[in-house]
Amino acid sequence: MKGESHFKTGKLPDESQSETAIIMLPSDANPKGNVFGGTILKHVDLIANLVASRHATHANTVTASIDKMTFLKPVYIGNALILSARLNYTKRSSMEVEVTVHAEDFDSGKRVLTGTAFVIVVALNDDGKPTQVPPLNLVTDNDKRRFCEVELRMMVRLKDAGRV
Amino acid sequence: MKGESHFKTGKLPDESQSETAIIMLPSDANPKGNVFGGTILKHVDLIANLVASRHATHANTVTASIDKMTFLKPVYIGNALILSARLNYTKRSSMEVEVTVHAEDFDSGKRVLTGTAFVIVVALNDDGKPTQVPPLNLVTDNDKRRFCEVELRMMVRLKDAGRV
Amino acid sequence: MKGESHFKTGKLPDESQSETAIIMLPSDANPKGNVFGGTILKHVDLIANLVASRHATHANTVTASIDKMTFLKPVYIGNALILSARLNYTKRSSMEVEVTVHAEDFDSGKRVLTGTAFVIVVALNDDGKPTQVPPLNLVTDNDKRRFCEVELRMMVRLKDAGRV
Amino acid sequence: MKGESHFKTGKLPDESQSETAIIMLPSDANPKGNVFGGTILKHVDLIANLVASRHATHANTVTASIDKMTFLKPVYIGNALILSARLNYTKRSSMEVEVTVHAEDFDSGKRVLTGTAFVIVVALNDDGKPTQVPPLNLVTDNDKRRFCEVELRMMVRLKDAGRV
Amino acid sequence: MKGESHFKTGKLPDESQSETAIIMLPSDANPKGNVFGGTILKHVDLIANLVASRHATHANTVTASIDKMTFLKPVYIGNALILSARLNYTKRSSMEVEVTVHAEDFDSGKRVLTGTAFVIVVALNDDGKPTQVPPLNLVTDNDKRRFCEVELRMMVRLKDAGRV
Amino acid sequence: MKGESHFKTGKLPDESQSETAIIMLPSDANPKGNVFGGTILKHVDLIANLVASRHATHANTVTASIDKMTFLKPVYIGNALILSARLNYTKRSSMEVEVTVHAEDFDSGKRVLTGTAFVIVVALNDDGKPTQVPPLNLVTDNDKRRFCEVELRMMVRLKDAGRV
Repeated sequence: MKGESHFKTGKLPDESQSETAIIMLPSDANPKGNVFGGTILKHVDLIANLVASRHATHANTVTASIDKMTFLKPVYIGNALILSARLNYTKRSSMEVEVTVHAEDFDSGKRVLTGTAFVIVVALNDDGKPTQVPPLNLVTDNDKRRFCEVELRMMVRLKDAGRV
Repeated sequence: MKGESHFKTGKLPDESQSETAIIMLPSDANPKGNVFGGTILKHVDLIANLVASRHATHANTVTASIDKMTFLKPVYIGNALILSARLNYTKRSSMEVEVTVHAEDFDSGKRVLTGTAFVIVVALNDDGKPTQVPPLNLVTDNDKRRFCEVELRMMVRLKDAGRV
Repeated sequence: MKGESHFKTGKLPDESQSETAIIMLPSDANPKGNVFGGTILKHVDLIANLVASRHATHANTVTASIDKMTFLKPVYIGNALILSARLNYTKRSSMEVEVTVHAEDFDSGKRVLTGTAFVIVVALNDDGKPTQVPPLNLVTDNDKRRFCEVELRMMVRLKDAGRV
Repeated sequence: MKGESHFKTGKLPDESQSETAIIMLPSDANPKGNVFGGTILKHVDLIANLVASRHATHANTVTASIDKMTFLKPVYIGNALILSARLNYTKRSSMEVEVTVHAEDFDSGKRVLTGTAFVIVVALNDDGKPTQVPPLNLVTDNDKRRFCEVELRMMVRLKDAGRV
Repeated sequence: MKGESHFKTGKLPDESQSETAIIMLPSDANPKGNVFGGTILKHVDLIANLVASRHATHANTVTASIDKMTFLKPVYIGNALILSARLNYTKRSSMEVEVTVHAEDFDSGKRVLTGTAFVIVVALNDDGKPTQVPPLNLVTDNDKRRFCEVELRMMVRLKDAGRV
Repeated sequence: MKGESHFKTGKLPDESQSETAIIMLPSDANPKGNVFGGTILKHVDLIANLVASRHATHANTVTASIDKMTFLKPVYIGNALILSARLNYTKRSSMEVEVTVHAEDFDSGKRVLTGTAFVIVVALNDDGKPTQVPPLNLVTDNDKRRFCEVELRMMVRLKDAGRV
């Protein structure tokens, strides 16, 4: 894997973004009906890998780290968990995916923010080694600002993960 | 439950529509890696109930029928299953949800149509009895055409289901 | 795969038929205790593939289509789901399995018909291509009548599925 | 719960017997494809409770003990697990269910005996206390012989379980 | 809930600590055999709640936040995931649990550190409101040092979570 | 596989012993909240295989038999299931693991004995054939006594299992 990109053209964050909605069942919660934080993180990780795999055009991706996640509001059995995931940043084999989680209560029709997570995913080749991903094309001002914000955090994280 | 609506204002199909993406795992497939049709239908039914619950503002909904589903292409372990669900029609306590299923292969980046299903979902009140749902506001020509198409099918189906 | 059969002897529908009984748990139902239609269809598909695999002596089978299924009565957590599956028809690589679903309530001892589904299953060889299955030996008048009834439906379906 | 029966008429073992067939998936097995003994025992226990619930006309039953089970042959992913369960004996709130387990390989068409288990199930009333079940009507010589054989074992077991 | 403790005696960290070992199955991993980070976090969250419930003598606990977790080494299907969880800190209704995760490979006999997580769990009473937990008795120098280290972090986190 | 050992040094029972704690969820229990005996046995089998794999340094192990297990006390949703597993005996490819099961109720803080199981596990090589495991080093009097006790039982069991 070389430092410079061998991809002729990059991809837009819009091309890989994804949304998922899942109804929470009793097996996702404690006996009092509170959905486990771990259930939510399992879905956060799955959608982050889906978005990363889509950008990398590689089925084999692994999670290098998941940032601290604060559960702002409890989620209950029967709520729908709504996850939105979008790529903020890429560098060589690493991608940062931002996942926003809402819980929707059908009886009230209300949708509340449950939390936000930043997930670093690494693309692997057929030998299980990190492999370069397409660059992220930044067009809107918003996309550019987000990219710059994560640049610093990203370097810190990759050093921590000892992956690159 | 009376024949005429007691809802002052209806809702647009756009307000309840949903999309879901799920990575297919070995436990979703036969030993050769072909995802079971039943796995796909389980997710079709879940998202149809989610859309119907969202429109009805009722967590308790039951499926009255799922139309014949033809699996146009095989789905494999590691593919993402992409489901889009949208309300076509409502009448009293019944709602028809159209669910489109695609399979996405990350290595090729291709997304192919797997099939389309029409699901009739009934909203239930706290006593488990069918309860009226808000009318569907039809604004676009396309929405109106779809509504008219299902009107006839719907009446046939409800008679079959013996629910209304 | 040639048009004519290379199987010297066929098999009776009795040789592959199967019955299954499964207790419905909270993870199979919505929070109000109504078993999901999708849970039922998942089991319908599994037993249809089991019967088809048994007839075809091939572990690798895929579902080509599942006919419209109407859920005549609600199924609740704690009920047993009783599925009976029997082969109606075969043609080259395709088999039609009829699955009857009952729900049994232990407290009342009552067993009620939940619905009936017709599932088309295709046998695949080791390369994942459709492969011919043994012919179905028709002995009883009832078996012959059922075979003739599905002959027409079957041709329509296979054309829809675009598989053969 | 009194010692003498308050059930006017008993039930035949045939009325509650059950058969189940389940395809073994990767999540049921170790990474080399050998199905876990624990997976098999989970299904043995489920069908034993189903048969006992059916006889007792009570959804709430608990397993008091499962006899030693020897796994005579390995079961692999893709095999069908075939379980047959039949009531051998009842006494007050306790029932002994005999469960026979076979594994069926679709490619060879062979069905081999995997093992046999004897499960003691106790019926509970709405307060969670043991409650009397209908007597077992013994008609055939075979049924009578089996009943007598378990009579002695049963008394030993109930003492062990400390339930009655 | 008052500020001062109404518990006469506290508990030692040793009384609630727990260790868990789980074999990783194909349903826990991506198709290439890499265990999902989300699977690991699901188990981290479960054991953190178990330790917190044990200390609080309350079955109803919810996760307020899970700190950033870096996955130092990949975990594969067939590995055992070994989790050790121990209470570092308590304040009113909140508890910080430190969870250490190792992966053990049976063929090599090696056990490697996968990562460490800090989980904040809140005890709830029967009305679902935060409820005070017993104080943590600090005896060893090590326990005292860890408590002091988290004191500052804890206050920051609780403010973020908006729970207390 | 020869009769005499080719392992230079054996291993202590302490090196492979394991403890696991799992919170019981609604999907582990019947609709009245009683955890299935089969759920408990599934976890007994998993931890027995984990301990055996650890001793044998082989990921591929199969259960030859599980001794009769009596469920002394009911286990409920929300309880923690605590399993302790320890190797009692080895002979050629076979290992006897003793698993003790407790249920812990968080509200009362009580931990009660649910039952004890003896599991025979066989190590397999890459061809799926039984393969010799390291001898068990017996140091304490207690370990020696337990070994002698099982010697007789073991021979009886292996003959039953028809494995060696």
